[in-house]
Amino acid sequence: MTKLIECIPNFSEGRRMEIVEGLADVAKSISGVTLLDYSADSSHNRSVFTLIGDPKGIKAAAVALAKYAAEKIDLTQHEGEHPRMGATDVIPFVPIKNATMEECVEIAKEVGAALASEVKIPVYLYEEAASKKTRTNLAAVRKGQFEGMTEKMAKPEWVPDFGEAAPHPTAGVTAVGARMPLIAFNVNLSTSDVNIANNIAKIVRGSSGGLKYCKGIGILLEDRNVAQVSMNMVNYEGTPLYRAVELIKAEAKRYGVHVIGTELIGLAPAKALIDSAEYYLQLENFDYEKQVLENHII
Amino acid sequence: MTKLIECIPNFSEGRRMEIVEGLADVAKSISGVTLLDYSADSSHNRSVFTLIGDPKGIKAAAVALAKYAAEKIDLTQHEGEHPRMGATDVIPFVPIKNATMEECVEIAKEVGAALASEVKIPVYLYEEAASKKTRTNLAAVRKGQFEGMTEKMAKPEWVPDFGEAAPHPTAGVTAVGARMPLIAFNVNLSTSDVNIANNIAKIVRGSSGGLKYCKGIGILLEDRNVAQVSMNMVNYEGTPLYRAVELIKAEAKRYGVHVIGTELIGLAPAKALIDSAEYYLQLENFDYEKQVLENHII
Repeated sequence: MTKLIECIPNFSEGRRMEIVEGLADVAKSISGVTLLDYSADSSHNRSVFTLIGDPKGIKAAAVALAKYAAEKIDLTQHEGEHPRMGATDVIPFVPIKNATMEECVEIAKEVGAALASEVKIPVYLYEEAASKKTRTNLAAVRKGQFEGMTEKMAKPEWVPDFGEAAPHPTAGVTAVGARMPLIAFNVNLSTSDVNIANNIAKIVRGSSGGLKYCKGIGILLEDRNVAQVSMNMVNYEGTPLYRAVELIKAEAKRYGVHVIGTELIGLAPAKALIDSAEYYLQLENFDYEKQVLENHII
Repeated sequence: MTKLIECIPNFSEGRRMEIVEGLADVAKSISGVTLLDYSADSSHNRSVFTLIGDPKGIKAAAVALAKYAAEKIDLTQHEGEHPRMGATDVIPFVPIKNATMEECVEIAKEVGAALASEVKIPVYLYEEAASKKTRTNLAAVRKGQFEGMTEKMAKPEWVPDFGEAAPHPTAGVTAVGARMPLIAFNVNLSTSDVNIANNIAKIVRGSSGGLKYCKGIGILLEDRNVAQVSMNMVNYEGTPLYRAVELIKAEAKRYGVHVIGTELIGLAPAKALIDSAEYYLQLENFDYEKQVLENHII
């Protein structure tokens, strides 16, 4: 049985499409790996790639992509809405089929070691692969962003897991980790006031008292002049998509603001969407495993 | 990519369980096919089987089952509440994945030809496979039932699509067709007044001016004292589930009634539910094929 691992590297380039296409070409050139999706966001100035493959292929793809990104992306010239600390900002590995979390942690460590030795990029392990509890959370690891990394990495508690205790001069630092499937899900508001999106994000995210498995920030989509609650749903069973949307709608009301649309970035498991259909359609006694036709096809 | 076809043959046997189990054994013996479900109804004296498989397997299964049914079921001895004209009464083929309606029509024709030549059963093609508009509707094809078939088939307009213009002496006639997946979907109202459910059903169903691919009646759930709009959604892409629910909600308002819940009976394709999630979550630019993880694994 083939082990299937998903890898979702994020790169700090969402404007120069020739670089984004170059990354896609690198991904497509690796055997044992399929490039499922990639998308670039101009206001984030960031691109997200989704690959799936066997352990050997997925490791090779991650290292090759990071090498290409380090050659083409210069963080000293980078501006964008999304926090970032590296040309390859973050590389998570996710167990999909016949693979365990432990195997993904092992892959994260091997890739981290390779980035340090072959590309001279220091690496922090995060989430399930974290070496310390204080490095579990990606936001904590990335705090200070590229511009603050020289100072941060000089502190004993922030010595990286692999590589030198200083950022690569242009490619910065990369976080490599292992985690459960994550759904990138954004909610667009009928306002251009990013403060409103920020206030709502604070309420909806788990870290400040909201929904446990939701992370969120407010951002402005400059091309549309639309404020957005940009979220990562880190456990869609614990915090379903519809619940975040409904909580955002309720909080937006106090500003006379409503939801004008949402975006799913990259992939989501079918169940994450069907859970929301079940809620909104008011389905009684629905059994996902039994009643969804595709679940009977082996 | 494997093509997946569903087949839901109906047999005129719902009392002698050894025959029903014998049919199940035949279905299980065919490679490339999975028997998803089968159920027998004693008062209808009828059983319904649900199989899924690749085109080659599903054709072989349909022919093998009809052969077994012709050997074991004698329509001259058959009594039951449900209208019927054959030992194998009806065989619909449904495109599920990577398969088109045209391919299912082709399969229906091949199976029809095989039933006539190998089992000596005359066949009418119906629904999407129908050779004439007057044969699209199954009820019209089956009118007269087994006992009236000798007379009916002698008429020029009822010459069968395959086989002789006379029923098989004991196994009768079979209708073979192609159609979209049918979803049995009910909406429960906050009233016990079945007239309200009936009035709403009239508005929502295509036959009286409502949603084209929706059939519906009002019924009373006596055990709950709840009026229900009971529907068959015959093409979930043409008429998505959410649209029926929202139209029912809008019409229910004039009676001060609301939707208290819905029921999905049996199976539905993942896409039928995800289409509703897409609507309610207000997803922008969602791509079912690309963004649902499982579509890349099967």
